[in-house]
Amino acid sequence: MERVPILKIGGVLLVSIQIDLHDQSVLALQEDLAERISATGAHGVVIDISAVEIVDSFIGRMFATIASISRLFDADTVVVGMRPAVAITLVELGLTLGGVRTALDLERGMRILRVLGQESGRIPAGDPTGLEWS
Amino acid sequence: MERVPILKIGGVLLVSIQIDLHDQSVLALQEDLAERISATGAHGVVIDISAVEIVDSFIGRMFATIASISRLFDADTVVVGMRPAVAITLVELGLTLGGVRTALDLERGMRILRVLGQESGRIPAGDPTGLEWS
Repeated sequence: MERVPILKIGGVLLVSIQIDLHDQSVLALQEDLAERISATGAHGVVIDISAVEIVDSFIGRMFATIASISRLFDADTVVVGMRPAVAITLVELGLTLGGVRTALDLERGMRILRVLGQESGRIPAGDPTGLEWS
Repeated sequence: MERVPILKIGGVLLVSIQIDLHDQSVLALQEDLAERISATGAHGVVIDISAVEIVDSFIGRMFATIASISRLFDADTVVVGMRPAVAITLVELGLTLGGVRTALDLERGMRILRVLGQESGRIPAGDPTGLEWS
């Protein structure tokens, strides 16, 4: 069980990080995500880190890389579910996750992605929630 | 990272199983889920097992227990994302997950929960997707 599963909800891909990420699993995740975005035409990616207790510069870079990859497919990325202790540590370490959008929880993240998708016309007008794609 | 995170999307709670589950983590998950259903009034629970490579009678019983707990809160449970090899093994072992509803993937699972919620009136009429609660 070393591959992080990627779930699809409408036009959004959801990644819930639960395992300790090492070089190999991060590379595999980035590859899998790129393939899934390309295959599904998703307009957004949510990375949930509510199970993550430690975020270091390695993980921070991973978020930035995933966001950059997604952008090449015209998809937005939001990191959600950060624990308070993680946020404090990040700021203390001077890691501000610049360029990576964050939201309190999955629902707020999906709301942000919906607004971004509608503003840019990537979510069809007849689909107010942006979740009806399949 | 031994607690399985529970995500909320509208009236549905989502559990993505990625770690090997042992007695303690299964108990913790059941407890957490019962508390979250009770706190949120969710009408459905989706358990994603796309990362799970082996399902034995222990895990099978866990699904049934979670479904029974959910039912006490008037919530439906769907297990989604089963790998083909897991399905074959389950049938070979005679474990048919009786009483536990299954679906191909997260989206189909959420569609089933939406239909069940609408039929029973647990999803308000003004909310066609069943995802607009927050």
